[in-house]
Amino acid sequence: MNDTTPGRGNVGELFQLLRDGAPRTRAELAKSTGLARSTIAARVDMLMSMGLVTPVADGVSTGGRPPSQFALNPAARLVVAADLGASHATVAITDLTGAILAEHRESIPIAEGPERVLTWLVDGAARLLDDVGRGRGDVVAVGIGLPGPVEFSTGQPVNPPIMPGWDRFDVPGWVRSHFDAPVLVDNDVNISALGERAVAWPVKEHLLFIKVATGIGAGIVSEGELQRGAQGIAGDIGHVRIARGADVPCACGNSGCLEALASGPALARALREQGIEARDGNDVVDLVKAGNLAAIQAVRQAGRDIGEMLTVAVSLLNPSVIVIGGSMARVGEHLIAGVREVVYTRSTPLATEHLSIAQSSVASRAAVVGASLLAVQHALSPEGVAAFMRQPATA
Amino acid sequence: MNDTTPGRGNVGELFQLLRDGAPRTRAELAKSTGLARSTIAARVDMLMSMGLVTPVADGVSTGGRPPSQFALNPAARLVVAADLGASHATVAITDLTGAILAEHRESIPIAEGPERVLTWLVDGAARLLDDVGRGRGDVVAVGIGLPGPVEFSTGQPVNPPIMPGWDRFDVPGWVRSHFDAPVLVDNDVNISALGERAVAWPVKEHLLFIKVATGIGAGIVSEGELQRGAQGIAGDIGHVRIARGADVPCACGNSGCLEALASGPALARALREQGIEARDGNDVVDLVKAGNLAAIQAVRQAGRDIGEMLTVAVSLLNPSVIVIGGSMARVGEHLIAGVREVVYTRSTPLATEHLSIAQSSVASRAAVVGASLLAVQHALSPEGVAAFMRQPATA
Repeated sequence: MNDTTPGRGNVGELFQLLRDGAPRTRAELAKSTGLARSTIAARVDMLMSMGLVTPVADGVSTGGRPPSQFALNPAARLVVAADLGASHATVAITDLTGAILAEHRESIPIAEGPERVLTWLVDGAARLLDDVGRGRGDVVAVGIGLPGPVEFSTGQPVNPPIMPGWDRFDVPGWVRSHFDAPVLVDNDVNISALGERAVAWPVKEHLLFIKVATGIGAGIVSEGELQRGAQGIAGDIGHVRIARGADVPCACGNSGCLEALASGPALARALREQGIEARDGNDVVDLVKAGNLAAIQAVRQAGRDIGEMLTVAVSLLNPSVIVIGGSMARVGEHLIAGVREVVYTRSTPLATEHLSIAQSSVASRAAVVGASLLAVQHALSPEGVAAFMRQPATA
Repeated sequence: MNDTTPGRGNVGELFQLLRDGAPRTRAELAKSTGLARSTIAARVDMLMSMGLVTPVADGVSTGGRPPSQFALNPAARLVVAADLGASHATVAITDLTGAILAEHRESIPIAEGPERVLTWLVDGAARLLDDVGRGRGDVVAVGIGLPGPVEFSTGQPVNPPIMPGWDRFDVPGWVRSHFDAPVLVDNDVNISALGERAVAWPVKEHLLFIKVATGIGAGIVSEGELQRGAQGIAGDIGHVRIARGADVPCACGNSGCLEALASGPALARALREQGIEARDGNDVVDLVKAGNLAAIQAVRQAGRDIGEMLTVAVSLLNPSVIVIGGSMARVGEHLIAGVREVVYTRSTPLATEHLSIAQSSVASRAAVVGASLLAVQHALSPEGVAAFMRQPATA
């Protein structure tokens, strides 16, 4: 809406029209958009030069003239999508619709630093491209999720607590020296929210994704769009104060923070104080799965604590679905039962009448799909297209 | 973005371009939008037939041809904007940019019911139109704010607690029998958020407006757009639970609700329990202005309670400005000091570094301006224009 630069303004709009896969003529595109025929011709040429749109033979002989119909070819160009977590990382090759063509997951701690982790990413992506018989020149964009705060405009992590060596590291610049394509970086909660919505809840315009793992964060999709806030830190809810935690200190210097009560490490610590062996959140998950009563009670209470924060979120944002994900969501119904208990008790009936509270069904895939969608959205935005046209693929 | 209907799709886009008041030729408009010349011509004709755009003589003789330049004429058409409060109402005539040309404010309780209050509105608007020398046919849209929940798609109040007789009343239908123009209805908090942003914070894309009066509600502007949520009840925060209020019952059936602790009636009740005469919020405001210590302490604590809810809102939404308005905001710094105390103590430094927390500076005018902007936005949307073209003004 905002971009009214002549000529290149709405290439993304044409792409959206073609996204359903149906072939269209230039005349049909002109009629649908109100754009001049010459503008349509220039933009179709641009999409074709990017390999996003391909001519389609329309069955009727055109007497040697070029085919008059065009359609999206989802696999004409590819996306490298990565979800770099605290201890594990996934890299994937997807098509332009976010469908995963090849995927590789491995244990690699983010704390090994940007050069090692990103080298793993680009090497892994290159191997996956080989596996699917394609090359670097086919990559139209790279999307990366990181387990910490990211300044979206620059793609740089900002004071990420569990990512030594990553602070202000130029992730897009480093990756772009290996893939000559736009590189989009965001925090893992935002890309998971995008991915969850695309994969599991495509018709829900108002989705709230809550990641419960070593930290706790939220990704907000309103009217189908990711909400980032003024400084890009919308959803940073780990240090919201919870009533019952007044005397529980948090690493941030305050007390009673949601993360100090309901994260994986917080639950493990609380169980250790009861004499139960639990090093981390994974141990808590195992204890719950083994039926340990104290662990089940702790996880249920964590759900109530998260629910307390969510009552405000539900009143403020009026979402239609809340998805609980992250490694702690693997405990299953115990966590979500606590969330539901509080949200349905404490929110107004109108706000919860049509509200679904669900566990993430796509888990780690959501983050990779979200990273892919984020990258494609940007690559096909007016700015992305302009940048692409200045730097055509070289391989 | 979503509307790609041929022809009428982007009349609103042309209007936005012309909004700065600078004259433009059809060729310039075609170049700026990429639209076909014939499309531009059709849309300029449409805007001219609506009276929104007028030809401008360009100084150079065109040898009898029609003028080739066009500019927005803000006062060519008018908007009726009304803010109907619990006990007072304001009706105004504005131009297309929301500037108030004439205004009338009167004590009229919303509880008198829709027919009486809306009759007052249409009679008042007719008199104001007379005052500015214009007629009903000049009205391009009507915008109305109501002190209760409104289903935005139909403009009907839904279970409004302080509006007997208004539940599911067809406000737009009733008003449209007096003004042949689109009628937009929303709750007063949403229109105030729009108006505050337009008047006082035009460069802030992320604004949170909090109304503190008989009830407590929030209006959310993100990336410049009002957020309504899945059922249109985003911002309905009056019944969020506040920690210190566990044993304070609320009319909703729960206890500890923000409204039961920090609204005008709640403060008056708390003061009465201390033996201080205070019938309502207005009395509390008077007591504070007279320097009554108990009233000042109560208001400060109300600010802290609102701040407790806002710490979650700040973390979730990362706004750049929070505006505190409503009748209780007239107590001045005492309320806002309590809000700041808690928000700046309990939110993460990154979220508060660039956050302003300010008292509404435009007060009741914000609601009227917001109602006008809401109405104009809709009247110039593709749907609004299409409806308008089917029903041309008759007066």
